[in-house]
Amino acid sequence: MINRRFILKRRPAGVPTANDVQWTEEPVRDLAEGEILIKNQLISLDPAIRGWMDDAPSYLPPIQLGEPVRATTIGRVVSSKNPEFSEGELVLGLNGWEEYSVSTGYVGPNKMGVIEDTYGLPLEYFLSVLGPTGLTAYFGVEDVLKPKAGETLVVSAAAGAVGSIVGQIAKIKGAHTVGLAGSQEKCDRLTSLYGFDSAVNYKNESDLVPAIKTACPNGVDLYFDNVGGPILDSMLLCMNDFGRIALCGMISQYNAKQPTPGPYNLWQVIVKSLHLQGFLVRDYAERFPEAFEHLSHWVSDGLIQHQDQVIDGIENTLDAFHMLFDGSNQGKLVVRIADDA
Amino acid sequence: MINRRFILKRRPAGVPTANDVQWTEEPVRDLAEGEILIKNQLISLDPAIRGWMDDAPSYLPPIQLGEPVRATTIGRVVSSKNPEFSEGELVLGLNGWEEYSVSTGYVGPNKMGVIEDTYGLPLEYFLSVLGPTGLTAYFGVEDVLKPKAGETLVVSAAAGAVGSIVGQIAKIKGAHTVGLAGSQEKCDRLTSLYGFDSAVNYKNESDLVPAIKTACPNGVDLYFDNVGGPILDSMLLCMNDFGRIALCGMISQYNAKQPTPGPYNLWQVIVKSLHLQGFLVRDYAERFPEAFEHLSHWVSDGLIQHQDQVIDGIENTLDAFHMLFDGSNQGKLVVRIADDA
Repeated sequence: MINRRFILKRRPAGVPTANDVQWTEEPVRDLAEGEILIKNQLISLDPAIRGWMDDAPSYLPPIQLGEPVRATTIGRVVSSKNPEFSEGELVLGLNGWEEYSVSTGYVGPNKMGVIEDTYGLPLEYFLSVLGPTGLTAYFGVEDVLKPKAGETLVVSAAAGAVGSIVGQIAKIKGAHTVGLAGSQEKCDRLTSLYGFDSAVNYKNESDLVPAIKTACPNGVDLYFDNVGGPILDSMLLCMNDFGRIALCGMISQYNAKQPTPGPYNLWQVIVKSLHLQGFLVRDYAERFPEAFEHLSHWVSDGLIQHQDQVIDGIENTLDAFHMLFDGSNQGKLVVRIADDA
Repeated sequence: MINRRFILKRRPAGVPTANDVQWTEEPVRDLAEGEILIKNQLISLDPAIRGWMDDAPSYLPPIQLGEPVRATTIGRVVSSKNPEFSEGELVLGLNGWEEYSVSTGYVGPNKMGVIEDTYGLPLEYFLSVLGPTGLTAYFGVEDVLKPKAGETLVVSAAAGAVGSIVGQIAKIKGAHTVGLAGSQEKCDRLTSLYGFDSAVNYKNESDLVPAIKTACPNGVDLYFDNVGGPILDSMLLCMNDFGRIALCGMISQYNAKQPTPGPYNLWQVIVKSLHLQGFLVRDYAERFPEAFEHLSHWVSDGLIQHQDQVIDGIENTLDAFHMLFDGSNQGKLVVRIADDA
């Protein structure tokens, strides 16, 4: 049984290339006691993967050189030496850019999810709007920002997998929503498909601050940050007193080749009495069922639109990953290795 | 009636000099309807004054060129055309580096405080432990950080007017307290006078992170930041998951001659799910009586020690102000213009 996979060969400087992430074909090893063998069907491509490639302190240990690139996947258990998992179960967990994963079924204290019923929905939904990105948006809005009706919420990378859901949940809560994105096409999608009140193409603005202020006549109460860097810096100048900022990601920094400075306007956090809160979706593992319940109803009621971009063929995983960083992906990016067989 | 005062003549680059802040003697102008004339007795010297000298957006408008340098003072009303104030009242408010202040008695919506009873305490206490610095420490600990027994709290500029009170309030709440200061003498004072569990002299450490980790064997749950800059950056690497940071001041940045970057380690806010909260003591104006009640009891019960450094003579105000930035002041810095006469 041959495993086609991408191995982290050296730590990338900047965007990872084929010299950093190497395509290999090698036999699947035998299972030890307590392990399961998963045949992966879908791979989730997320900006966070880039961070795991660095040898830097983070919320997960770095991917070790020689290991497959880590990613959330959905696959079927094809062999089990772990009594907690049965052959044939559909599991969702942190595995890798590979056709077959050998796993204990756990990451730290967290057991892999078992998808018992897909409710007739496409499987990729469980990696996107009903999966990690939908859950991230849900807890960032519901728990961190807590928008009240009439408050103004801005989200960056608003056409992305997380940002597009953030705007729609905030809208359900009655907020005025403004999205930041990097092309006119994306901005059009924000208002036409995702129901944002307005959108700002940050690539058109030499100074983002006046553009934000025009789009937010009552100022900004809440900011959901997916990007860090200069956009976060501009947003600090636009916040209302006692505003709240959810720090979810810093995609502008992930491929930096040297340490990048934080916001020059951090002083605004004091003079405006701002709250900043970082969060990870795994902090909320106990509340995933609540989020899933809400998200699945909103999706079936048509209150949340979403867009998944499925790339076929595991051999295209590295090229597809680049789309996250050049902004060419259209919504949540997923690689399909194989259909269920 | 001649007013001896310091006028902001030009905006300083770096530490303000006599070319920026000019000594003048000029007649006191007549009162308009609604104004009062205050004969100042004490001037509070605080790092925030440096920020008000810049022409930058902040929580108060910049000091205008030609105006006296703004500061909190205590003085007596010697003449009143405002029915809310009576001649002879002792008032505490935002006035200036000057012997006489003409005022409406208000800053924005906030009326000047009237000190009705000094309880036999030295008047400078109402600018320090029972005044703005004590109140800042109180709300930063009680409302922003909310230490629980056994948690570890670190405070920077710990020998300063705010930091020394922060450590002692946290100790009353049962926290393990660690202070950062810039000399061995100050560190000795932190443990011997202010009851900190330990102290770190940051000027002795080429890398602050291991020194903090040694002083905080259980990691850092709470950090009260008075300084910003590289110390904040180091602290981000020392925080426990779900740690909380109160941003109170950034004295390391106030004299910078060009924009200074924020923390290079801001990513830690996400990976550790940290809370950062900026605050201003004026946010809590409605709760000042509660804070005064607690602080005055803690002081009279000997649970809070404090040190005020009183410099005599208004002509020495600018030189005294420099002590805040070279670290040579010993606790809360106050200029005494005149005793009550």
